[in-house]
Formats: sequence, structure tokens, C-alpha cells
Amino acid sequence: MTHEPVKQTLRLGIAGLGTVGASVVQMIARRADALEAAIGAPIRVTAVSARDRHRDRGVDLSGLTWFDDPVALATASEVDCVVELIGGADGAAKAVVEAAIGTGKHVVTANKALLARHGAALARAAEARGVALAYEASVAGGIPVIKALREGLAGNAVSRVYGILNGTCNYILSRMEAEGLTFEACLKDAQALGYAEADPTFDVEGFDTAHKLSILTSLAFGVEIDAEGVSVEGISAIQPLDLAMADELGYRIKLLGVAQLTEAGIEQRVHPTMVPKASAIAQVMGVTNAVTIDADAVGELTLIGPGAGGNATASAVVADIADVASGLNRPVFGRPVDRLSPPRRVEMQRHEGGYYVRLTVHDRRGVAAGVATRMAEREISIESIVQRRLEKDASSDPHGRSGRPVPLVLITYAATEGNIRAALDAIAADGLLAETPQLIRIERE
Amino acid sequence: MTHEPVKQTLRLGIAGLGTVGASVVQMIARRADALEAAIGAPIRVTAVSARDRHRDRGVDLSGLTWFDDPVALATASEVDCVVELIGGADGAAKAVVEAAIGTGKHVVTANKALLARHGAALARAAEARGVALAYEASVAGGIPVIKALREGLAGNAVSRVYGILNGTCNYILSRMEAEGLTFEACLKDAQALGYAEADPTFDVEGFDTAHKLSILTSLAFGVEIDAEGVSVEGISAIQPLDLAMADELGYRIKLLGVAQLTEAGIEQRVHPTMVPKASAIAQVMGVTNAVTIDADAVGELTLIGPGAGGNATASAVVADIADVASGLNRPVFGRPVDRLSPPRRVEMQRHEGGYYVRLTVHDRRGVAAGVATRMAEREISIESIVQRRLEKDASSDPHGRSGRPVPLVLITYAATEGNIRAALDAIAADGLLAETPQLIRIERE
Repeated sequence: MTHEPVKQTLRLGIAGLGTVGASVVQMIARRADALEAAIGAPIRVTAVSARDRHRDRGVDLSGLTWFDDPVALATASEVDCVVELIGGADGAAKAVVEAAIGTGKHVVTANKALLARHGAALARAAEARGVALAYEASVAGGIPVIKALREGLAGNAVSRVYGILNGTCNYILSRMEAEGLTFEACLKDAQALGYAEADPTFDVEGFDTAHKLSILTSLAFGVEIDAEGVSVEGISAIQPLDLAMADELGYRIKLLGVAQLTEAGIEQRVHPTMVPKASAIAQVMGVTNAVTIDADAVGELTLIGPGAGGNATASAVVADIADVASGLNRPVFGRPVDRLSPPRRVEMQRHEGGYYVRLTVHDRRGVAAGVATRMAEREISIESIVQRRLEKDASSDPHGRSGRPVPLVLITYAATEGNIRAALDAIAADGLLAETPQLIRIERE
Repeated sequence: MTHEPVKQTLRLGIAGLGTVGASVVQMIARRADALEAAIGAPIRVTAVSARDRHRDRGVDLSGLTWFDDPVALATASEVDCVVELIGGADGAAKAVVEAAIGTGKHVVTANKALLARHGAALARAAEARGVALAYEASVAGGIPVIKALREGLAGNAVSRVYGILNGTCNYILSRMEAEGLTFEACLKDAQALGYAEADPTFDVEGFDTAHKLSILTSLAFGVEIDAEGVSVEGISAIQPLDLAMADELGYRIKLLGVAQLTEAGIEQRVHPTMVPKASAIAQVMGVTNAVTIDADAVGELTLIGPGAGGNATASAVVADIADVASGLNRPVFGRPVDRLSPPRRVEMQRHEGGYYVRLTVHDRRGVAAGVATRMAEREISIESIVQRRLEKDASSDPHGRSGRPVPLVLITYAATEGNIRAALDAIAADGLLAETPQLIRIERE
């Protein structure tokens, strides 16, 4: 039972020559000898396609066949493996990938949106044609997390996978924390530095994280991708006060994507999260990404690295290309598409965990007691409580109470989201709240 | 160019049924369906071998062929892949692996000592026979770092790889730091808890880390394994005062294995190391392991997870088995043995970096100035200096100096080890030292 190495040259067609595409072309040239040594056969870019043929990308494209139409590249006889770096869930990217698979070519893509929406159908098509559909670059940039989940942890049953999957959000939260700035101010800086798009919604409201999470969920739990089933909440409502309170209480706030196996099904949720300061993931600052995997045999595994950037993303693309060239033939989502389970959504109301609840209450006698009562009625136990008083002023009562809005922060022990929300509704109905409450879930190691 | 999945059952022979072997047998049974789904063919244990046939291992061995002689198992016709879990650089382990390769069987091993000593010869033999020699479990237990280096970073040139590769040492240093205990006290506890052997030399003096590092070096830099070329220093000389000073200066002390590409060659060194408190690796406490890889495209990648234990190690063994079953055929050390470069040792004297120097000086006038002068003569710049005075007593001079031994701690900017040692020799010759100096290298991100 010996393995025959693949001996042919792998001929690549690169569709999309933005930062990542240009970096892939350069890396394949720069690492030609090392890759040939690793694979036993050469890897060569033979064709490229992009919108503007005349733009200077700082890359030598001489000798390569240029295609104005990426679908023509995807079906060209001189291409064995199509590298789709166009982006977007539909349109040209989808057409290219479908055409490539349809003509029996391997596909490497960095396109999380495409996979999140059409992953199962594309995997089915790739399987039927016996070609690879590789997507390491679609999640957490340069971190080889797809490989770790699919191959490195093949002996494990995964119970939870969670991570910082969006560098823009982590950059903004890191700066808010370090400098006490508002979300809006940090977003502006992130845009100026090129870390955030002109329309930042997709990043800061958590949708990008949700796409990536849905891919990890499929791999980790052997279920069909269900991006629509992810509960999503972004970071735009986080205030400097929340970061300051988190710090005081021994936490940091990160936008996490969390996929967790529970008795009721698989939770998929994206939300700002309090993580203990001493955890590995709490140390991850700036645009860096991190993924933690909880699994039965290995316990806890954390991978930390760059989540974006041309070179880091190209690193993952080239790793996939090398796998394709070496004949790696693991199923796209870890098992054949027919053996993926249907999604098993769990309503967020059923989520159970600790909560940070920041209320803005009127600084009056009996308010804390009123809040505590409503919590107790819903069987929510309070781990700690922090009440901030304003400076005394002329309007204060004899106990220093001013009647004006002040923050009241609670950390709860594990409770269901349904109970928390019901308690907050009751507290609001009691007229105790001056503002909408802030609710941040706590994720423990 | 389509990939044909491997269709035969992979039949395993497990040589060695200690904690890891028993865990592998259980995991292959428990994950049979998932593994078959991932591979497209079943994986089955068919034969086992261990010293004592009658010991109860809590594992069902019925239906498996028992071999008293592991070499007989390694050559048995009913085995396609031999899993070597005997351990040791020579003796039975080596005989088993050689016999397996010699009869055209794949080998999966967790044996770092065997690889460190005979890795190149065994890889050459495996290559000649066209069989796999897989060893994910030999370094950092359950962390898939071999896979990350060989496959995940295939597009990268690595410049440095370093990590916490020995859980025993990290456990001892973590406890010394947290509780202010001595090395000896923590070692005793580690032994009581089963984290350290009765003879702990191999772990605490850094040799285990050196074996693992030599394997990472080969993979990361494409050189032949050179375990003899690792400069090794253990943790037994670390004192509580060093940990306290590290804390004060913003560092933690970890036993690191570091392999670094320099102009002069490849440094391989194992030593207690000061790492900045905010670094990911500084957060790694207890028996956990961590590896950081610096590479040109990806920048910095850190993997954190369990470095030992039956289940975690078995997780890596089973991942290797799954790779073998799926026909993965990457060269053992990332490129064919003939294309590995010869080792390029660099003398430790040429190492350049920051240093923590703790001197024990006589508390007399002019001592600090004398030390500083000798450092300056060797072009060593001091970043910070901390001098501890004893309480004033009757014997003190008018400036409170007692003449008795007191610590004087220096942090240097980058300097060569040769210069540091020469300066310390000169300081000793000046009669300024009451004890042998403590020298701890600083590793920055």
C-alpha cells in the first residue's frame, strides 16, 4: 500500500488580481523551488483574469495568458486549478467556481460569502466531479484553522469553536479599550488606516464574522452550512463605559463568533463577548484573529494569527494550492455532502451563560432592590454588582441619591437568555430604567 | 486531473499500549464512523503488541492479534500501518520502525527521541519505500504544529520558530511564579501529580525540549535534524527572585526552545527565557504548550494547546493515521531527504539579543559604576537597572551600604552572548561578585 506521488505540473488560473491575487502570483514564483520540493512536481501560474488589464500591480504577468472573462479562464484547457479571488456571494465568483468544477478543475477560493451561501451545493458538485474545493483563506486569513479542524483534529468530537474572526472589529475594540475612545471615533481611524470599508456595516455589524463562523460550524460539527441560522449582533452599541466596566470586572470585550453543541442543537452566534482577561483570546489585540476549538480528546486548542492582508491571505491560498497539487482528497466539509446533518438551530432565547447587564437607572432609593427582585423571580443569580454614584449635588437626598440616571452593572451566573430578557422587560415595566439596557454575553474557557 | 480516493481499509498495528496506545485504540473505535466518512474507507486496529499481555488497560482487545514481539507485529501481513508508541531513541522502537518501513508499511510515531537521533535515516528509508513516516505527536502533543509548518505554511519562508514544548517545566515555572516557591518544592509537587518523572533530568534540564526543537528546525528550515547542535540549558537554576524581578520588569520566564535563522546559520537553543507579559506565549500556564512561528507571508502564527496526556497525544496520532489513510504523501521533513541542507550551527557566543543579568554584588560604594563600566567596554547598553538594598543596620556606612551581598539586576539592549560573558568575566575578576551571576535571555515578539 504505497502512495504514488502526483507527477504532473499543476497549472493555475488566477481569477482576480487584487492584493491577494497579486500576492499569490508572487508567492508561487518566489517559492517555486520549495513548493516543487514539497510536492514532487512544479506549480505554475499559466493564466490570469481581472477587470483592468492595464493596471500596474507590481507583478510580472508576462508569459501568462490573459482572460478578460474569468469564466473563460475557468474553463480553459491550460488550467488545472482555478483560484477564485473575485469575491462576492454570487455573480462572477459563483459563475467562475461553477464553471471550473463543471469542467473538472480543482478550485481554491478565499470567498467566505460564496461558501456561506452556496457551500453545500458547490461541495456536492466538486464531489461529483472528484475535484477539490479548498477554502482555507476564507476563514481567519493566514491561520490554518480549516486544516486544523478537518485534518489535525480528525480524531476528535468538537463541542465548541469560537473566535475573533474580524480584524476590523477587534481593532476598533482594542483602541476603544486602550484609549477610552468611542466606537465612532475608532471606526473613523480604522477607515483612515484602511482597516475598515467606507460602508463598514458588513464588518462592524457582525455579518462577516457570521459567514466565517458558518463555515467553521459545518466543519466542526459535520452539518450543512447554515449562515442564515447565525444570530448576529455587532459592536456599534458598545460604549467606552462597557469597556471600562469590563476591565474593572476582570474581562475584555471581543466580537466573537461562537458555535456550540448543546442538547437542543447547535448554537451559532456572533456578538460582543466578555472574555476573562487571563484567557489566550483576551490577549489578541488589533487586527489579529484567533480561533479556539474545544474538543473531547485534545481539550482546548487556540490558534492566533493574521486574519487579513494580502500576504497572509495568500499564504492560506498557496497552502491550499499545495494540498491540491499533492493530491489531498479530504471531503470539502470533512465528510461527504450526503453525510452532513441538516442544521439544528437553537433559538437564542435558549442560550445559557453568564451575562453582563448594564442598566441605566434613576438614582433613587430601592432601585437596586427592585432590580434584584425581578432577577430573582426569573431564577437569575447575581455574581457581582457595581453601582456608580454621581457626585453629590444640591438635589441629592440625605443618602446622596440624586434621582438622575446612573449606571448599575450586574454580572450574572449562568442563566438563559429568555429569562434575562424577561427580567429586563419586567424591570423596564417597573419604570426603573432611564435608557435601554446593555446586554453582553460572557464566554468562559 | 481528478483525485482517486483510497478505498482499502487501513489496518493498524499498535506497538506499545501505555496511556497513549490505549487511547488510540479507543479513539479509532469511538470515531470509526467519522473517520470513515472523512477518509472514504475504514480504519481498523488489527494487531497490538505490548510487554504484558495480561494487564488490564480498560480497552477491549478482543478480536485483535496479539504479538509479544513488536517487530513481528511490524512485519505482519495483516498490518498496513504501524503505530510506534514504545518510545526511546533506540532498542525496540527503532527496530519496529525500521522493520515496518523495510516491509513497505506506513509508520506513525510519537517518538521524538527516535526522530531526533535517527530522523534523517528513517525518512530516507521511508522515501525509498514510498511509505509515510508521520510524527505529529512527537512535538507539542495535541497541537497540530507539524501539519501547520509542513502544509499550512507551505507558501512561507520561516525565519523563527519558538515555543513552550515541555509541560513539566512550564508547570514548575508557573507555580514558582504564582506562589513564590522554589524550583525544588515545585518539582516535588509536579512529581506527586505525575507531571514529572522520578528522574526529572530529561525534562527540567531541557533535553526533551531540545529533541522536539530539532524536529521543528528541520521542518521549518529544510535542514537535516541536528539535535546535537542544540544549545541546552534547563530551569533548575531559576530562583524565585528571578521570577519576582521578571514580573517587576514586565516579563515572565518560560523555558523556550528557539530555532532562528541568522546570517551566520541556524541558532537552536533551549533556555529559560524572559518573554514580555503581554505576548501570547506569556499567557501559557501550567502543562500547556505553545508554538509561535515567524514567517515571511503570514507574519506571526501562534498555536496553543495540550503538550502531553494520553488523549491529546492520541489525537495527534489519529490525525496522522487519517492522513496516511487518505493517501497524504508530503515528504517527511517537508522536502525529499536529499534536498535537506546540512545543519548550519551557530555558536551560542554569537547569539544576539537582550539579556537579564542578575548579579549578587557586595553592597559597597562604586559597585554599580564598576559593573556599568565593564558592560560599556564591551559595548553593552543597559536598558534598565534595579538595585535592591537590604534594610539599614548597625554595620551600614553613612549611605546605608552594608557591604553584604545584594542583588543588582540589569536588562540589556541587544548584545552578543560573547560580549555579555566577557563583561561578566571582567566583573568577576574585579572582585565585585559574591555569587555566580544569573543570565537569562530575553526573546521579543
